[in-house]
Amino acid sequence: MNDIVLAMRARGIKSSAVRELLEFSKNPDVISLAGGIPASDLFDMDGIDDTLGAILRDEHRDLFQYGLTEGEAGLRQQIGNWAGTLGIPASPESILITSGSQQGLDLVARVLFDQGDRVLVERPTYVAALQVFQFIGARIDGINGGPDGLDLDQVERELKRGGVKAIYLTPNFANPTGYTMPLAQRIRLVELAQRHGCAIIEDDPYGQLRFSGAAIPSLLSIASQQPGGNRTVCYLSTLSKVFSPGVRVGWIVPPAALRPPMAVAKQAFDLHTSTLTQNIVARYLASGRLTSRIDVLRTAYRTRRDALTKALRDAFGNDLSFNEPEGGMFLWCRFARQVPAEKVLEAAIREKVVFVPGNAFYASDPERDTLRVSYSMLGEQSAEEAARRLKRAWDAVVRD
Amino acid sequence: MNDIVLAMRARGIKSSAVRELLEFSKNPDVISLAGGIPASDLFDMDGIDDTLGAILRDEHRDLFQYGLTEGEAGLRQQIGNWAGTLGIPASPESILITSGSQQGLDLVARVLFDQGDRVLVERPTYVAALQVFQFIGARIDGINGGPDGLDLDQVERELKRGGVKAIYLTPNFANPTGYTMPLAQRIRLVELAQRHGCAIIEDDPYGQLRFSGAAIPSLLSIASQQPGGNRTVCYLSTLSKVFSPGVRVGWIVPPAALRPPMAVAKQAFDLHTSTLTQNIVARYLASGRLTSRIDVLRTAYRTRRDALTKALRDAFGNDLSFNEPEGGMFLWCRFARQVPAEKVLEAAIREKVVFVPGNAFYASDPERDTLRVSYSMLGEQSAEEAARRLKRAWDAVVRD
Repeated sequence: MNDIVLAMRARGIKSSAVRELLEFSKNPDVISLAGGIPASDLFDMDGIDDTLGAILRDEHRDLFQYGLTEGEAGLRQQIGNWAGTLGIPASPESILITSGSQQGLDLVARVLFDQGDRVLVERPTYVAALQVFQFIGARIDGINGGPDGLDLDQVERELKRGGVKAIYLTPNFANPTGYTMPLAQRIRLVELAQRHGCAIIEDDPYGQLRFSGAAIPSLLSIASQQPGGNRTVCYLSTLSKVFSPGVRVGWIVPPAALRPPMAVAKQAFDLHTSTLTQNIVARYLASGRLTSRIDVLRTAYRTRRDALTKALRDAFGNDLSFNEPEGGMFLWCRFARQVPAEKVLEAAIREKVVFVPGNAFYASDPERDTLRVSYSMLGEQSAEEAARRLKRAWDAVVRD
Repeated sequence: MNDIVLAMRARGIKSSAVRELLEFSKNPDVISLAGGIPASDLFDMDGIDDTLGAILRDEHRDLFQYGLTEGEAGLRQQIGNWAGTLGIPASPESILITSGSQQGLDLVARVLFDQGDRVLVERPTYVAALQVFQFIGARIDGINGGPDGLDLDQVERELKRGGVKAIYLTPNFANPTGYTMPLAQRIRLVELAQRHGCAIIEDDPYGQLRFSGAAIPSLLSIASQQPGGNRTVCYLSTLSKVFSPGVRVGWIVPPAALRPPMAVAKQAFDLHTSTLTQNIVARYLASGRLTSRIDVLRTAYRTRRDALTKALRDAFGNDLSFNEPEGGMFLWCRFARQVPAEKVLEAAIREKVVFVPGNAFYASDPERDTLRVSYSMLGEQSAEEAARRLKRAWDAVVRD
C-alpha cells in the first residue's frame, strides 16, 4: 500500500506563530498581547440584535438560499455608500464581496501570480499575507520600511529588475508595525507601479480606526484620479475590525479588468460568501449605526494604546523602544541590547504573558530583537500587569 | 503606462454555463430546469427561526468573534454524531469545517496537486470540480461511466500509467448523471487507489436524498475498515442540500495525515468559516430536526422526479431518453437522432424554458446530444408545462 503524496507547495507548510500562541492565550490566567483581534466587549450587540430581530420579522427565506458570486446587491450598495463617505471610490459594480479580507488576499494572489513571479512586501509585514504568497509559490522580496514609510528608491530598483507582479502593503496602521504611509509616498508609489505595470495590493482593514491626525487618501483614490481610472490598485477591506470578524465579510475593489476573472475564480473557490451574513452586514450598514460605533472603537482603542504605552514606558524605561501609532491595534517594539524576542517569550510564558516575536513577520532575515504587542484587548489594569510580567521575563533573560 | 498581467491560470477562465443560464432563470416567465439547487420552499423555516431565536436568547457575543480554523468544536461534535447515525465514520477530531463543499474541493485540490499532476474524473462530471482542477493546472482524464458505475479497468490502466494524484467522483446520485456506484465497484476502487497511493475525493452532497433502494456504504467507510484506517479517501459533504446553502457550511473527513496541512492551508485561504453560521448549523443539528426534515425532502423530491419523468415521457416518447435516479436532483438525458442540446437550448430560450447542455460537464470530447435537467424546483404543473415547452423547442430544431 502506498501513501498519498502532498503537492510540493503543501509540504512543510507551517502554522503561523500567532496561531500557535492561541493555545496559551486560552488560559484565563495568561494576559495576551499576541492576538490582533477586535475586542468583543466593544461589539455593538444592541445593533446586532436589532438587525437579527428585523431579519426574523421580515421575509428571510432567500437569505438561506444560494446567492451571486459577486456578492449580494444590497450589500454592495451599502458598502459603496459607506466607502463614499470615507472618500474611497467604490461603486457597487466595482465591489466584489469576499469571505473576509483573507480570502480577498488569496483571490488577488491566485489571479495575479504564477509560480516564481515576484511580490514586494514591506519588511516586516502581515504574516498571513506571507503565507498566501508562499502557498502560491511567489518570490517574496522585502522592502525596508519605517515610521516614515517605504524605501521607494529600493522599490524602483526592484521594479526595474523586472518580474514584479505586485506590491503588497497596509498603508494605514500596518500589522505588525502600526506605521502609516505619508501622502507624497503614496502618490509616488502609484506612479511607479503604473509605469511598470505592477499591481498594488492595498490592504486596509484598520483605516477607520484612526485616533489622531488627519486621514490620508487611499492608494485606490489616488489611482482612480488617473486618466482612464484605476488600473493599478486592488483595494481590500473588511467589516472584521469595525463590526464583526465572525461574519467573515470582506470586500475588494480591483481594477475593472481584474474583476471578471476574480469573480470566476471566487466561484471555483467557494461559490459565494454566506448569503445570511452578507445580509446581516447590509442591514446593519443600512441602520446607520456603524459611524457612531466607529467613534466608540476609536476612543476605546486610543485609551488602550495610551494605557499600554504608559505601562511599558514605566516598566522598561530605555530597555524597550516602540512607535506610537495614530490608529489600529499594534505597537512594534524592539528590546535593547539586541536581546532575541523568542528568548524573552519563553520566560514570558512562565510569567503568564504572551506576545508575538517579530521574526514571524519577515519572509527572510528577521530582526530578532523585535516584537509585536497588541493593545486591542487590554484594559488599563491589565496593561500595567502585562508590562510588569513582561519586564520580569526580560529581567530573567538579561540576568542569564 | 503598462497594464497588469494576469497569472497564466487566470487567463481565459470562463464562467460556467450553469452560471450564465442564471440570467435567464431570473425571468419569472421562464421555467428553469437548469439550476441544481435545493427548493427554498422546502427549507425548514420554523426550525431556522427557533434556532435564531434561541441564539438571541443565549449569550451570543462569541458567535461574532474570530474562531478556530478547523471549525467550531460544537459543530464538529454534532456533525460527527449525525454522520455516525448514517454509518459515516467521522470523529469530531477528523472533521474539518469548510465554507461550503466547494471550498472543500478547492482545499483538497490545492493540497494535493502540483501543476501537471493528473486527476481522473467520471465522464461527465460536476462542472465546478472541473473548474477547480483546471484552475490548479491539473491534467484531467475522463473515465467512462454509466448507470452501472465507472469503467474500473480503465481506471486501473490509467493508474498504471502513473502520475495520477487523485480520483474525483460523486458516488451517490451524481451531478449531472444521477448515477450511483454499486458496492462491489466501491470496494475495488478503494483497493486500486490504495495500491497506487492515489487519493479518492469522494464528493457526497446528495447521499441523504435517497428516494428508493438501500443506502450503499461510503468509500470512506470502506477505506476506514482497512488495517491502519483510512489513508486514501477525502470525504466531502455539506449542509447545503439538506439544510441551507446560504450558510455556506460544508465538511471534510480527510486521511489523518492530510488534516494538518489542510488546516494550515485553510487558514491562508479564509482563516475560518463564519463563526455565526457554524453555530446556527450546530444548534439546528442539536435540535434533532434534521432527520425528519430529510424525510420531507425525500418525499418532495421523489414526487418532483416522478412528475418530470412522466411529463417528459408523455411529451417526447422516444425522442428523449434518460435514467431514473434513486435520489438527488438530476436527470441525465439524451436527445434522439444526435441532435445537439445547445441547438435545442437556443430554441428553448425562445420557448421560455432552460436546461444545461451536457457538454458543460465534460473536460474534453463532449457528447453533444446530452443535457442535464433538474426537477428539484418543479411542481407537477410546472413539470408538464416545462416538458411541453421543451418539446416545442425540440420540434422547431428537428423541423429545420
